[in-house]
Amino acid sequence: MDYNVFFDRALGQLRDERRYRVFADLERLAGRFPHAIWHSPDGPRDVVIWCSNDYLGMAQHPKVVGAMVETAMRMGTGAGGTRNIAGTNHPLIELERELAELHGKQAALVFTSGYVSNETGISTLARLLPNCLLLSDALNHNSMIEGVRKSGSEKQVWRHNDVEHLEQLLRAAAPERPKLILCESLYSMDGDVAPLHRICDLAERYDALTYVDEVHAVGMYGPHGGGIAERDGAMGRIDVIEGTLAKAFGCLGGYIAANANLIDAVRSYAPGFIFTTALPPAICAAATAAIRHLKTSQSERDRHQDRAARLKLVLNAARLPVMQSDTHIVPLHVGDPEKCKTACDLLLSEYGIYIQPINYPTVPRGMERLRITPSPYHDDALIDRLAEALADVWDRLGLDRVDQVLAAE
Amino acid sequence: MDYNVFFDRALGQLRDERRYRVFADLERLAGRFPHAIWHSPDGPRDVVIWCSNDYLGMAQHPKVVGAMVETAMRMGTGAGGTRNIAGTNHPLIELERELAELHGKQAALVFTSGYVSNETGISTLARLLPNCLLLSDALNHNSMIEGVRKSGSEKQVWRHNDVEHLEQLLRAAAPERPKLILCESLYSMDGDVAPLHRICDLAERYDALTYVDEVHAVGMYGPHGGGIAERDGAMGRIDVIEGTLAKAFGCLGGYIAANANLIDAVRSYAPGFIFTTALPPAICAAATAAIRHLKTSQSERDRHQDRAARLKLVLNAARLPVMQSDTHIVPLHVGDPEKCKTACDLLLSEYGIYIQPINYPTVPRGMERLRITPSPYHDDALIDRLAEALADVWDRLGLDRVDQVLAAE
Ligand SMILES: Cc1ncc(COP(=O)(O)O)c(C=O)c1O
Ligand SMILES: Cc1ncc(COP(=O)(O)O)c(C=O)c1O
Repeated sequence: MDYNVFFDRALGQLRDERRYRVFADLERLAGRFPHAIWHSPDGPRDVVIWCSNDYLGMAQHPKVVGAMVETAMRMGTGAGGTRNIAGTNHPLIELERELAELHGKQAALVFTSGYVSNETGISTLARLLPNCLLLSDALNHNSMIEGVRKSGSEKQVWRHNDVEHLEQLLRAAAPERPKLILCESLYSMDGDVAPLHRICDLAERYDALTYVDEVHAVGMYGPHGGGIAERDGAMGRIDVIEGTLAKAFGCLGGYIAANANLIDAVRSYAPGFIFTTALPPAICAAATAAIRHLKTSQSERDRHQDRAARLKLVLNAARLPVMQSDTHIVPLHVGDPEKCKTACDLLLSEYGIYIQPINYPTVPRGMERLRITPSPYHDDALIDRLAEALADVWDRLGLDRVDQVLAAE
Repeated sequence: MDYNVFFDRALGQLRDERRYRVFADLERLAGRFPHAIWHSPDGPRDVVIWCSNDYLGMAQHPKVVGAMVETAMRMGTGAGGTRNIAGTNHPLIELERELAELHGKQAALVFTSGYVSNETGISTLARLLPNCLLLSDALNHNSMIEGVRKSGSEKQVWRHNDVEHLEQLLRAAAPERPKLILCESLYSMDGDVAPLHRICDLAERYDALTYVDEVHAVGMYGPHGGGIAERDGAMGRIDVIEGTLAKAFGCLGGYIAANANLIDAVRSYAPGFIFTTALPPAICAAATAAIRHLKTSQSERDRHQDRAARLKLVLNAARLPVMQSDTHIVPLHVGDPEKCKTACDLLLSEYGIYIQPINYPTVPRGMERLRITPSPYHDDALIDRLAEALADVWDRLGLDRVDQVLAAE
């Protein structure tokens, strides 16, 4: 049997649908972000990154880099074992304390990624609740969907951010049945925000647990970077807050924060937590440094919002089709996978601007877009240069400007 | 509803079965491994680690630490994005090249952990093969079992290392059906090794793909650290080799190596690879440094085997029940979860020796053990001190010495 045929066919299908992905080989430069080197097929070139999820540039912050360097020199590179067998390290314990405090919870548990925290966290929680009903927002991230699947529990999907629909489902469910409501606080492709208080109202009324993914909000919202829930004063009402250390905190890893018993049960039962090597001490120390810095420093958050507002303003002025977004995410509508890809290729090769096309299945077909993420380090000049390049590319590809898009609707 | 009751009950069950785990809070000291600080409930204490999977002590190797430090200072702490969106970094590309070369394959793909590489790698591979039959060794690691489950494909389990049984299953399966044989090369709880050539013979005869987890062998076996498959000259016969960067290579992350098409298909379809932040450049550079060092340096491997042989000798001389092991893993039979835990508690609190008890479900009930992993840095004096402490603890707990164990069988 020629097994290669199967792999070939699978790859051919992606190519046919223009969904085959080529990764850009980037070399970030600490202290020069968002500037980076792109190792192009023709050799290294300078580029400006406009789609990083190192939202606040913390991956190059001297305190964060310093903590990683100091800890690596003092404790070495790896944890050397699973959490149970020789891998629990002091910086990891300190990180978990810091995260619990950040979210005003009794305890926190760190995983190797936000993905794993959702997948093994949700599935383990659901399995601990007999005959549990999972109520999942329609736009929840793949890691949450996989967690739901893995649990084997019954799932019902509510229309995105539609609390009336959520209430219908809750009302229809047996009152004595354990229920777990799953949503994100900030949806990363559209930049819209969940009505957390209204969701918590329903959870209280219908006696459900709430699990909120704050991956795209921690560090960036709330007076201490506790996320949208902190900003909205809803933190104490949410049972489980999940986050990542790999975006605004500039490192790697994920976590959940909740009451001590819940955390202890997940710690004791989650296979994806138990049977894998613990995060390296140097990563944990760097993440703790980022969290501590952002707990007291508001300037990154202010500047971040200022940059996003400025970028939206400039792109709107150029009549580029900025999609409605309440947050730091700036999506630009294209609506065609081929043109979306070509636009990004042109931006990279001719303008030294790196933005990754967002195509199906990350967003629905017809909603293809550029997803732009300005950081505190994208200054006015960079924003202006981006707007000019985009206007240029839009013209070259015959893409719609705003009034035309509106007319078409 | 009091959800806490569910978590309480789950935790209570573990306590009743003496399976509730308390993690030791350790502070490794680069340059002093296996010495470390244990943050005990009564304050910090010096201990010697005897159960680390940093098997060769590479997590403290100056080249490895140096690569992490240098890369963190130059490129920052985090990758800043998923592989597709801004996260592919140059050290990661270099690491993948290095891994492909190490295993003599066309390509390699790095994941955030060995766990994830198995879980999402196996499930994705199986889904790409229509109506695939998975043939899994009975003692495969939880991460492989979860990958099998997640695939939704039919699974058949062959008795551990029993190629006759494997052949029966292969013979009974429809010839035209795609088949994937899953095993480890070195089983980490018993230290026994899979008959790779005989498994490959069967794979050829019955037209199956082979997937071998070399997590506990890479870096440590074979003239370049390519694992048991390299040592046995079977590397070219295995379709997919899976490994970790978190054990002998002293860092974090996992990978698969295989032909280019297979790797490209997994890269393009595996959710656990696609929807998560890429490994930090500093981790990748450190892993590459470890792999490169171990590719040409044989001394760590020689010393490692020498230490394991010496330890077995000394423990056997003390009539301690060393279980048969063909490798660097030195399991010591206890056969009772309570005594296993108490032995380890005594070793830690009274002798400053850290070994984690291995109880059910990691091993079958009745097979509870201490799993000792000597490294190149455990010298004769440490080995002697360990043997004395063990003999002491054995006497105090009335545990069996070897002739008694044999007599009981
Ligand atoms: C909403 C959401 N949750 C979880 C994750 C996974 O987090 P991590 O990158 O830490 O695995 C992501 C993306 O990476 C995400 O967008
Ligand atoms: C056989 C085996 N495969 C995979 C893994 C997972 O590797 P990692 O620690 O890199 O997640 C482990 C243990 O950690 C293991 O023992």
